[in-house]
Amino acid sequence: MQKAVVINTGSELVEGRTLNSNAKYICEKLAERGFVVKKVLMLDDDLDLISSTVSQELLDNDLLIITGGLGPTEDDKTREAVAKALNRSLYVDQELANKILDRVKKYYSKIPENIVKQAEVIEGAKVIPNEVGTAPGQLIELPGKKIVILPGPPQELIPMFEKIVNDLKASEDLIIVVMTFFGIPESVIDETISQLEPSKEIKVTTQATYDNGVKVRLIANKSISCKVNEFAEKLIKKFKEAFVGFGDLKLEEVVVNLLKERGKKLAVAESCTGGLISSRIVSVPGASQVFLGSVVAYDNDVKIKVLGVSSDTLKKFGAVSQECAMEMALGIEKLTGADICVAVTGIAGPTGGTVDKPVGTVYIAVKYENNCQVIRLFYPHERNIFRMRISGHALFEVVKRLKGMI
Amino acid sequence: MQKAVVINTGSELVEGRTLNSNAKYICEKLAERGFVVKKVLMLDDDLDLISSTVSQELLDNDLLIITGGLGPTEDDKTREAVAKALNRSLYVDQELANKILDRVKKYYSKIPENIVKQAEVIEGAKVIPNEVGTAPGQLIELPGKKIVILPGPPQELIPMFEKIVNDLKASEDLIIVVMTFFGIPESVIDETISQLEPSKEIKVTTQATYDNGVKVRLIANKSISCKVNEFAEKLIKKFKEAFVGFGDLKLEEVVVNLLKERGKKLAVAESCTGGLISSRIVSVPGASQVFLGSVVAYDNDVKIKVLGVSSDTLKKFGAVSQECAMEMALGIEKLTGADICVAVTGIAGPTGGTVDKPVGTVYIAVKYENNCQVIRLFYPHERNIFRMRISGHALFEVVKRLKGMI
Repeated sequence: MQKAVVINTGSELVEGRTLNSNAKYICEKLAERGFVVKKVLMLDDDLDLISSTVSQELLDNDLLIITGGLGPTEDDKTREAVAKALNRSLYVDQELANKILDRVKKYYSKIPENIVKQAEVIEGAKVIPNEVGTAPGQLIELPGKKIVILPGPPQELIPMFEKIVNDLKASEDLIIVVMTFFGIPESVIDETISQLEPSKEIKVTTQATYDNGVKVRLIANKSISCKVNEFAEKLIKKFKEAFVGFGDLKLEEVVVNLLKERGKKLAVAESCTGGLISSRIVSVPGASQVFLGSVVAYDNDVKIKVLGVSSDTLKKFGAVSQECAMEMALGIEKLTGADICVAVTGIAGPTGGTVDKPVGTVYIAVKYENNCQVIRLFYPHERNIFRMRISGHALFEVVKRLKGMI
Repeated sequence: MQKAVVINTGSELVEGRTLNSNAKYICEKLAERGFVVKKVLMLDDDLDLISSTVSQELLDNDLLIITGGLGPTEDDKTREAVAKALNRSLYVDQELANKILDRVKKYYSKIPENIVKQAEVIEGAKVIPNEVGTAPGQLIELPGKKIVILPGPPQELIPMFEKIVNDLKASEDLIIVVMTFFGIPESVIDETISQLEPSKEIKVTTQATYDNGVKVRLIANKSISCKVNEFAEKLIKKFKEAFVGFGDLKLEEVVVNLLKERGKKLAVAESCTGGLISSRIVSVPGASQVFLGSVVAYDNDVKIKVLGVSSDTLKKFGAVSQECAMEMALGIEKLTGADICVAVTGIAGPTGGTVDKPVGTVYIAVKYENNCQVIRLFYPHERNIFRMRISGHALFEVVKRLKGMI
C-alpha cells in the first residue's frame, strides 16, 4: 500500500476565495492508481508552515504532491519551503531562465524583475515543463519517496500532471466497482452491506446524494475481482427495484441515453419542481434529440389553460392530488405528442400544507404505452432538497419504464 | 488575532469523489469575521487520524470547525474521534434520539438499528439543531477555545453554520461591505478597483460566479467605516448599469422580492436554458405569489403549438432569432396574462452552431408595460456554464425593468 498526501498552498484557498478543484482532481487520479490518500492539506503562503508540513508528511508518506506558490511574486514560497524541508539549496537554471524571459517578452514590453525567480530549481530536482504558463514544476526523488511540485492554476497543473501520472504508480493493481441505487436510504443499504459480510479485503464505501441516490463503491486488489463482482451481484439482488446501474450515474444522463436507445421522446409537466426536471434533462448534451419540452404549471390557471386540467378536478381534489397529476400528464401528452410523459405536483413548503396533505406530499404521474400510473410520495424536507429528491424520483420512474423494470 | 482551523472529514474528499465546497464556504465566513485560517485539512474517515489531528490543532488554534462523519453508518467517526481527543465520553441524548426516530418514521416503515448513533453527544457539548437532516451538530467550549462539529451535506451545514456564526467573532471589530454586479467581467472590475486606489487598510476581494455575477467584498476595521462606504460608492458609480445591489445576492431572490414589492406576476418561455430560469425562481420560498409558470419549448413544434410562434418565423429566421424570441415572449404572455414575460432562445452547444449564429448565441426578449425588447448576447462557454450565465442575464433583465434602470 503506497501512501500519498496532497498539499495545496495559497492564501486564496484558506481565505475561501477559491474552490480547491485541484485537490479533487489529484485525489481522484491517485485513487485510480491505487494510492491511499488519508489527508489533504491546504496551507497559507507561509514559508515555515509549508516547510514544516513537508518535513512532517515525508515521514508518513511515499508520495507528496504539492501545488501552488510557484509564481514570481513575494508570496510564492513553495520552492524555498521544500528546499528548506529537505535541507537543499536552490539554484537558477539559466536555460530555464532564458526560456521564461523569451516567453514573457512575447506578452509584455516591460519585463518584471522578479520573473526569473521561477527558474529557481531545488538541488537534485528534475524540471517538469509547463507548456501553458511560465512556472515549471519539479520532481524530486528520494530513497523510496517522490515529491512532485506543480503550479496552482488548473489549466497549467492538469496537463503537467497528466504527463507524469503514469510514472506514479502504486504497487497494487486495483479493481473499482461503483453502483448507483435510487429510492433506498443510505442507512438501509449500509445495514444490508454489513449483513452480507463482504470480504475484509474489499473496501466498501457508500455516499448519499439528494438528486442521484446512493452510490456504493467497492475497491479491492485485482486478484480478487471475482469476489468483488460476486458481492456486487448479491447487493444488486437485494435492491433490484432500486438499482439504477453500474457507475457513478446521473439519472438525467441515464434517461437521455435510454430514450435515444429506445427511440422515444419525453415531455414533462411540472408544478412544485418548477422546471428542475426539465433543466436536468437539458443539461445533457444531445438532449434535444429526445426531449420535446415541458410546461411549468405553477399557477392553477396555467394548469387549466395550458395543460387542460379541469377546474372541477382542482376544486374537488386540489392541485396536489392523484387526479390533477394524471390530468397534467395527459395534458402534456396532448400538447406535445411525446411517447413518455411525466407530471409532478406537490407541496414544497415551507407553507401550504394541510392535515391530509402536509408539506412534502407529492404525486408523480407517468403516461407510457397506454398506461397512466400515479405514485404518492412524502418527503418533508427543506424546499430545495425536496425538489432535488423529487426530480430524481420522477427521472427514475422514467428509467424504470424504459428499462422494463415496471 | 484569533486563529481557526477547518477540518473536513470524509473518504469522498480524500478519494476525490466530492469537491470540498464546505471548506471554501467556511473559510470565507471566518475571514469575514476576522479569523486567521492558516490551514485546512481534509481527512479520511479514520478514528485515530481525526482524533490525533484534533489534539494537535487544538494546541495552535482558538477555533476548530470540524465537518462530516456525523451520519449513522460504520464509517462515521467524528463524534467518537473528538471525544477521544478531548478524553471525554459520549452519551445518548434520549430526547434527541426520539426526535430522530420520529423524523425517520415519517419516511420509512423499517427503522435501521444504527440510526440513534446520531443522538450521541460528547460530554459537555451543546447540541446544534439540524432542521434539514437527522444528524445534529455540536459545540464544545474549552477555556479560550471552541470546537464546532457540523454535518457534511452543505444543505444541512450552511443553515446550521449561519445560526452560530455570529457567536464566533474574532476580537477585531470589522465592517464588511459586499456588492453584487452582473454582466461585467471580474478582470474589468478588478482593474477599476486598482485605478480607484482603495486605502491600504481596506481589504478588497472579488469573486466571479456564473449564475450571479461578480461579488466585491470590502473588509476593514469599523473605525474607518466612512472610507469603506466612500470607496463602495465610487465603485458603484463606475458600474451603475451592472449594480444588482448590496450583499451577496442571488438574482432569483432579488427578482421574487421585487415582484412582491411591485405586485407583479412573472412568466417565462425557455428554450436553451431548458427550465433553469423557472427552477431558480421556484427555489425561492414564496415564489408562488409572483410566478405563474413557464413553457420549456425545446422542440420547435412546442414553440408553435404551445407558444404560438409562427412556423413562417421559424422557417425564415430560425428558432434562434430576434423574431422567435419576441413571439415566444408574446406567446407566454397570452397564455398566462403575466405582467412581465421573459423568453430565451439560443444555442447551448456543443453542436448546432452556424457561421452567422455560432454556439453561444442567444436572444433574450422581455415584454413589460407595452414594450417588448430583445437583446442578443454571445457566450461561447461549455453548455451548462452557458445556461447558468444566460439564466442570470434573463433574471437581471427583469431586475433592471422592475427597478426602473431601463
